[in-house]
Amino acid sequence: MTASGEGPGGGSRAEVLRRVREALGGARGTRPPVPRRYARRLTDDEAVNRADVLALFTERVADNRASVRHVSADELGTAVAAALWGREAKQIVVPADLPFGWLAELDGVRALADTPAVDVDTLAAVDGVVTGCAAAIAQTGTVVLDGGRAQGRRALTAVPAYHLCVVHADQIVGTVPEAVERLDPARPLTWISGPSATHGIEMVRVEGVHGPLHLEVLVVED
Amino acid sequence: MTASGEGPGGGSRAEVLRRVREALGGARGTRPPVPRRYARRLTDDEAVNRADVLALFTERVADNRASVRHVSADELGTAVAAALWGREAKQIVVPADLPFGWLAELDGVRALADTPAVDVDTLAAVDGVVTGCAAAIAQTGTVVLDGGRAQGRRALTAVPAYHLCVVHADQIVGTVPEAVERLDPARPLTWISGPSATHGIEMVRVEGVHGPLHLEVLVVED
Repeated sequence: MTASGEGPGGGSRAEVLRRVREALGGARGTRPPVPRRYARRLTDDEAVNRADVLALFTERVADNRASVRHVSADELGTAVAAALWGREAKQIVVPADLPFGWLAELDGVRALADTPAVDVDTLAAVDGVVTGCAAAIAQTGTVVLDGGRAQGRRALTAVPAYHLCVVHADQIVGTVPEAVERLDPARPLTWISGPSATHGIEMVRVEGVHGPLHLEVLVVED
Repeated sequence: MTASGEGPGGGSRAEVLRRVREALGGARGTRPPVPRRYARRLTDDEAVNRADVLALFTERVADNRASVRHVSADELGTAVAAALWGREAKQIVVPADLPFGWLAELDGVRALADTPAVDVDTLAAVDGVVTGCAAAIAQTGTVVLDGGRAQGRRALTAVPAYHLCVVHADQIVGTVPEAVERLDPARPLTWISGPSATHGIEMVRVEGVHGPLHLEVLVVED
């Protein structure tokens, strides 16, 4: 070992590894402790009951500069249409498996189903996208998409400037750890907390660069 | 026992029960054997492989006087629209959770989502209904609805005169026992083998009395 390690290059590599091993000492091969003392559940100050969780979600979505409205299941079609009319949307794109009832009241708005997949130029040209979500988080005012039912592929909510997201009340959990428990880490997760926002090196906030400039959330209470 | 059984009425009741018990003899409390020698799977004569199962389904649906067409997933929206145009349908009703993509190509056909529930007069007035199914059976050319996703409540497919049913190829099984294995007996199952047909006491076949006069099946091969 020592003899072969003395050659050009080999000697310095062995020396570096020796020093790394020495520095690691007894900790070698063990895992450093990761602090996991973050809140796993909402505190009673934040939410005592289910109605408080919904109220907190609504408040935090609004804090994130997104619009949020509560509707009953029967009103959902009308609420989606009203939101699109309010933005004077003429053409939108939707995942092909979006429930038809969500778009049943559209009048004068053309919806393109993303099957076969709509090209990027069309995605950039449409007035918005309507999706569901996989989960939503009250504490952070976040909606999470996982590419499952009524959510479609990622480009759908990355390119158009307006995203209308339908959240069923039973999809809303209190905290991020609760959402993580519900989600499948193997799926393509998109976590959306308000409209897209970016800071350049000048630390100037710019919205809508890497995703929708406008996010609107409809909470359906059944 | 004997003394009290001799009163008016009591005597004859005891006598009847005695004779029933006597007639049952040793079989009392046992279950009569039920013959279950029906075919559980398709024979090789009927279908050797998956393509044969689909072909048999297509043939049997047609035998049942229903139309049947095969389409790819990308063509489904166009095929649904073409079927409705072919019938000159102006207004249809659909379950609220029908995937939007199925209706994305409709032009000049108004689709009513069944939420809130459409009244019976409207159901009778529309030109048809579009649904999915829970399972389909090759040997009998049957589609089975269970009120689950994209199927809606029973009245939707009982009242309108035309039913367009979308069947995904992987929902088709060979035989009735295979379908029963897949289905939940606690759900409201509707078994549809061709258009509605009824025979009065004169044994004259009348179609469309208790359900759709016309059934059309679109098989989606992914």
